[in-house]
Amino acid sequence: MFVLVNLKAYPCDPVAVATAARDVAEASGVRIAVAPQAAHLDAVAETGVETWAQHVDPIAHGSHTGHTLAEAVADAGATGTLCNHSEHRLTLADVDGALDAAERTDLETVVCANNPDQVAAAAALGPDAVAVEPPALIGGDVSVSTADPDIVEGAVAAAGAVDPEVDVYCGAGVSTGDDLAAAADLGAAGVLLASGVAKADDPRAALEDLVSGV
Amino acid sequence: MFVLVNLKAYPCDPVAVATAARDVAEASGVRIAVAPQAAHLDAVAETGVETWAQHVDPIAHGSHTGHTLAEAVADAGATGTLCNHSEHRLTLADVDGALDAAERTDLETVVCANNPDQVAAAAALGPDAVAVEPPALIGGDVSVSTADPDIVEGAVAAAGAVDPEVDVYCGAGVSTGDDLAAAADLGAAGVLLASGVAKADDPRAALEDLVSGV
Amino acid sequence: MFVLVNLKAYPCDPVAVATAARDVAEASGVRIAVAPQAAHLDAVAETGVETWAQHVDPIAHGSHTGHTLAEAVADAGATGTLCNHSEHRLTLADVDGALDAAERTDLETVVCANNPDQVAAAAALGPDAVAVEPPALIGGDVSVSTADPDIVEGAVAAAGAVDPEVDVYCGAGVSTGDDLAAAADLGAAGVLLASGVAKADDPRAALEDLVSGV
Amino acid sequence: MFVLVNLKAYPCDPVAVATAARDVAEASGVRIAVAPQAAHLDAVAETGVETWAQHVDPIAHGSHTGHTLAEAVADAGATGTLCNHSEHRLTLADVDGALDAAERTDLETVVCANNPDQVAAAAALGPDAVAVEPPALIGGDVSVSTADPDIVEGAVAAAGAVDPEVDVYCGAGVSTGDDLAAAADLGAAGVLLASGVAKADDPRAALEDLVSGV
Repeated sequence: MFVLVNLKAYPCDPVAVATAARDVAEASGVRIAVAPQAAHLDAVAETGVETWAQHVDPIAHGSHTGHTLAEAVADAGATGTLCNHSEHRLTLADVDGALDAAERTDLETVVCANNPDQVAAAAALGPDAVAVEPPALIGGDVSVSTADPDIVEGAVAAAGAVDPEVDVYCGAGVSTGDDLAAAADLGAAGVLLASGVAKADDPRAALEDLVSGV
Repeated sequence: MFVLVNLKAYPCDPVAVATAARDVAEASGVRIAVAPQAAHLDAVAETGVETWAQHVDPIAHGSHTGHTLAEAVADAGATGTLCNHSEHRLTLADVDGALDAAERTDLETVVCANNPDQVAAAAALGPDAVAVEPPALIGGDVSVSTADPDIVEGAVAAAGAVDPEVDVYCGAGVSTGDDLAAAADLGAAGVLLASGVAKADDPRAALEDLVSGV
Repeated sequence: MFVLVNLKAYPCDPVAVATAARDVAEASGVRIAVAPQAAHLDAVAETGVETWAQHVDPIAHGSHTGHTLAEAVADAGATGTLCNHSEHRLTLADVDGALDAAERTDLETVVCANNPDQVAAAAALGPDAVAVEPPALIGGDVSVSTADPDIVEGAVAAAGAVDPEVDVYCGAGVSTGDDLAAAADLGAAGVLLASGVAKADDPRAALEDLVSGV
Repeated sequence: MFVLVNLKAYPCDPVAVATAARDVAEASGVRIAVAPQAAHLDAVAETGVETWAQHVDPIAHGSHTGHTLAEAVADAGATGTLCNHSEHRLTLADVDGALDAAERTDLETVVCANNPDQVAAAAALGPDAVAVEPPALIGGDVSVSTADPDIVEGAVAAAGAVDPEVDVYCGAGVSTGDDLAAAADLGAAGVLLASGVAKADDPRAALEDLVSGV
């Protein structure tokens, strides 16, 4: 299982979470990555944790003030990027363009989507992975794997029908070891989570619980 | 072959083009539809021509000032709608939502895309048809079927691999009967065109030439 | 006082509301306009009511699929347009461009804004009027003129400091004759309202009540 | 005069440009700041140069994946931010919100605009400065102060009429000491430039030429 911790714009200490994630990943053998604000990529990558961008724009070098260049996040230490998160939707053409930018810079990619149809569409664009995150469950207390197991299984089936090489992750409400185990049982190869770690009183303990059942 | 004439925001007389399209469709037996500005749907539909919207938003009845409600365009006489045209790109989630809105109101749908990968993605969302229109060729003098036949064949193959029920159209630079014949030879079930008719000195003659080889 | 009834994408009968608005305007001498979906402009204008668009795009004639051309809404009978409604925000440059488009076609303009600072900014772009509508109150049961009178007075002062020729309207929660009178007392030259009429069981009665105190 | 060097997404070495800018600022006494990609803020700030963000989003701490949090760019060493650059336009409400975010974190602000009307609108929102940059001249070889001096003088007058405390900068095509002197003569308190330094064979020499006449 792959655990991708999205720090969003939360008021956490990104280096502290990154350090905890690095330690828990090493101790457990579970792959854990942390996706901070672009301005924190450098500091997070220096901890040695696997570091992801939250977003890259569908651009190459050029006149693009205020947009996120894949080369810049890679320079700062990112080795992967989220794309099309529900809080930063892109046009279909721009998802395609962002994947091109990520491929150009060897960033691993996860394209987010709301439901199995969109997962199939995302998979057709050739990312490394897709993630199904029902918007209604994001930030909530109930894990997608409990609240809507059908959507996870549907996403796994939909992506597999388009391209069996594309991994499927799930997200929304994931916070415990049981949630992770349930996601794995439904066919997910990983989970996206955010508030469950970033807003936890003790992010290290939250991560330890999360991977305890793997 | 299906011929969809997109009037965009061109300074043509929408009723005159619609009347010509209706007459040429009747005389030739070729299916021709006209997509005017939303504010012109009523007047175009009154000619009896098959009438399409250029866009509908991913909304249902509610508080959505300035957005295009599928029910409203259907009221005004539209029986189909373009979606995700290169001049009005939508997020992946909104293409999905616009198709839901169109389905709710029995509007036929064509989702536009730039290349075969995006065509596959669009097809995964379940529209009636997809259209491949390379942005570099839109509005130009050379038809996509001449300038880039591979992209049309690639689109036909890509859509077919995802869902064989989804028709594939092509567009960009289409204006003559030869262009239409070439598109059909490449496997397209229809064409999108705009300036070739809307900006023609004689739209009726342009349409007659277009369908002459079918 | 000017009363602008925004039908948004509500499931009302636009011609019935327009007919009622026309009759109430004639009987009361109060200026009332109705802003329907673009696809309903024709039908609404045919009732003889003053007809407004909900939005025009910052475009001229050309390749702009799915965007709303000022000339098209004027053709269909609109004589004014809302701009930058909170449900359809535009960039600063596009507000400027939409006002240019409206001016080109002699559409009267109202630019919406959230607060006095934004009202001042909007007034600097030279519209006929600005409207202050606090987003938190839109669609609610309490009128802006009751819930937040300071914001209306602040908007009147802010617009006046930039350009005394620009009228100030207010909106959000307006539905009764008392709301209208309160708005006038605060210096507003008009009101924007939507659900109070469009979702009323009896739109005619709602309009009659609204103008009863003028 | 204030010189703000926007590195956009150009393929330059941000630390080398920052080091040169720091040295030239110290040697000349001219205030020079550098605005790199968000992911490069840390590295640029470490050189000691005045460091700016290219953009911040109108958000506070919370669920905003892929958006740029003012606190994060401030953490990374930024002390100012561009806002509403022509390559990253914001809605009027979001310019207002981004200025709130910048104020919350003590970032100095420059709001970009196309013309004097938009400059007046931007000034009404209370930034530290506004910048007029005619889009047609951005990235070109002719300085705005030469090609369109009226627009600079118009911007100075427009901002002054709204709020005399707001500084006015100009940009587009600025690259030489003569351009800077011309801008100052027209009433500008600073310049924005990008390719003239970022794409120069020798950024240090370009900066030295730029400030030579101050």
